[in-house]
Amino acid sequence: MLARGGSALEWPHCKIRGATVNPSLGGIADVHFADGLFEAVRRVGNPICVGIDPRPEDLPPGFLDRYPSDRPGVARALGDFGGAVIDAVGSLAPVVKFQAAFYEVYGPEGFLALHQTAQKARDRGLIVIMDGKRNDIGSTAEAYARAYLGRAAVGDRFEPSWSVDALTVNPYLGTDGIAPFVRVAAEEGKGLFILDRTSNASAREFQDLVVDGRPLYRHVADRIAAWASPHRGTSGYSLVGAVVGATYPAELLELRLALPGVPFLVPGYGAQGGTAADVAPAFDPEGLGALVNNSRGITFAYGKPDARDRFGDDWQAAVVAAVEAMADDLARHTTAGRLRIGPSSGG
Amino acid sequence: MLARGGSALEWPHCKIRGATVNPSLGGIADVHFADGLFEAVRRVGNPICVGIDPRPEDLPPGFLDRYPSDRPGVARALGDFGGAVIDAVGSLAPVVKFQAAFYEVYGPEGFLALHQTAQKARDRGLIVIMDGKRNDIGSTAEAYARAYLGRAAVGDRFEPSWSVDALTVNPYLGTDGIAPFVRVAAEEGKGLFILDRTSNASAREFQDLVVDGRPLYRHVADRIAAWASPHRGTSGYSLVGAVVGATYPAELLELRLALPGVPFLVPGYGAQGGTAADVAPAFDPEGLGALVNNSRGITFAYGKPDARDRFGDDWQAAVVAAVEAMADDLARHTTAGRLRIGPSSGG
Repeated sequence: MLARGGSALEWPHCKIRGATVNPSLGGIADVHFADGLFEAVRRVGNPICVGIDPRPEDLPPGFLDRYPSDRPGVARALGDFGGAVIDAVGSLAPVVKFQAAFYEVYGPEGFLALHQTAQKARDRGLIVIMDGKRNDIGSTAEAYARAYLGRAAVGDRFEPSWSVDALTVNPYLGTDGIAPFVRVAAEEGKGLFILDRTSNASAREFQDLVVDGRPLYRHVADRIAAWASPHRGTSGYSLVGAVVGATYPAELLELRLALPGVPFLVPGYGAQGGTAADVAPAFDPEGLGALVNNSRGITFAYGKPDARDRFGDDWQAAVVAAVEAMADDLARHTTAGRLRIGPSSGG
Repeated sequence: MLARGGSALEWPHCKIRGATVNPSLGGIADVHFADGLFEAVRRVGNPICVGIDPRPEDLPPGFLDRYPSDRPGVARALGDFGGAVIDAVGSLAPVVKFQAAFYEVYGPEGFLALHQTAQKARDRGLIVIMDGKRNDIGSTAEAYARAYLGRAAVGDRFEPSWSVDALTVNPYLGTDGIAPFVRVAAEEGKGLFILDRTSNASAREFQDLVVDGRPLYRHVADRIAAWASPHRGTSGYSLVGAVVGATYPAELLELRLALPGVPFLVPGYGAQGGTAADVAPAFDPEGLGALVNNSRGITFAYGKPDARDRFGDDWQAAVVAAVEAMADDLARHTTAGRLRIGPSSGG
């Protein structure tokens, strides 16, 4: 995801104080998001996205006791917990996803903890998804895009504010609300995942409403296909992805067929009831094309019934075992098993 | 918006360390959001929402030069600019709205500036809307709701993290994605504004798709009506509001009729082309029921062609004049003019 110089950015209103932007700071990424993503999936050998959704009440017993009982203290605890999850999963999974809400609820201190944890994940070599479901139009959408995927204007230059590789976004506002994200992501070698068919029960209230004989989520998928099509990498996959829940396998298959070349981020495995068989349609024959997210099933695996017997107080060991069990589960029931038969493992 | 004790909160998973929540910290608000909102509108005599969307490149000439050319410096400049806008409009408008994106783009430092500026606005007696268009499901939606409208679990108590009165939210995920916001808002005397028909050109791509003979935004409106109905105050208005753009007056009228008792937040006046006549259908006969937002038309009024002649370097004077001109414009072309014929003005 390194940037090389030589291409002027097309953000005319980012010129501040009338200064000319230094074109050597303009970014055209060397590595396309999807190419880097699926290279990491191949290298690690599974398509697991570890969701980090820290709630204080879910932290391991005693964890919070080491911190002051105030907002900065809780925020630091969340940061340290996320960092410890990253230490545990850093070589076992290719991707982590942060649920911004659980940090924002602790105000600026929480946001700082999120920032530091995302940086740690990236330093550790993980691909980082910010699950913020941001959405707006025009220059506001561009500000969100630059926040998480691009750079902010500082003096006469642009500097990245966040160390993340992809952002989740909500499509309700149409192309005006998506194009700025696509443009910034394309310039910076980053990606996005657009909500399409989500994993919750009431998703059907709007997403399944029938327009011209097809549910709304298919119309959204048509737009996603159009947004994604100009931005494919050598892997055949686009930097524009989609969020498609694991809990509706028929829709998952339907959308996989409708959206070739669109990476899927699949929530709903585990806690929400989705099984490995349910997510199987998300993958291509090589085991690529999808990430399967698991949040509480991994990070709070110490709370499972048999965990105390197996791991005692070592909650990170429970995290490691949960990732390994999920990787085995996906390998048995999806084409992601083929990722293990690579040249490196000699299998 | 004071809280009184005596009602236990129904957030069972917010119990941390197994401690019982102190019920005296549970909040049932004394003042209903819409009642407080429209009381403020009556008191000030206009329905203006001043949008604070600070972009460094739009700051008054020389403003940035007083700050270091780094991310914390720009963030501080944005904070001080917002504070100065609040000083200028504090007694002239009832409501301010912060566009979160323009702060998030400066990372944790930007978020801190947003936090401080929101606090200043509230201390100044303004009603504060966070325009974050947040959305998610279940406990994640609840985390966003508690972040901006409620309280975060800290030790054995709950503490507010943010000083805002209402949040904008996106409805794409359905009731699962809205109910947590409604619940927290109802407990805390706060409000929300749900995107329905937005002011941008491509809003039509999804929002206007026809389902059973009616556009999607009407189906969203049906849900908004259902979410709003149980939560009306003595003003007749609900704590559940809707975002309906000024740039489509026919839809604005249609939705006003479909959503009695739902406060409207109307963007698109001014810079996006909406006129006072365009927003007139949003109001009830007393001039209540709607807030009309104006962002750059107010905060960057110093950039208008005649501003330098009229105000010289005094950009805050241009802000004051812009609010007064907008109030006059709305008074002439909408029922909001009746707010001026109150007992206090004797008119």
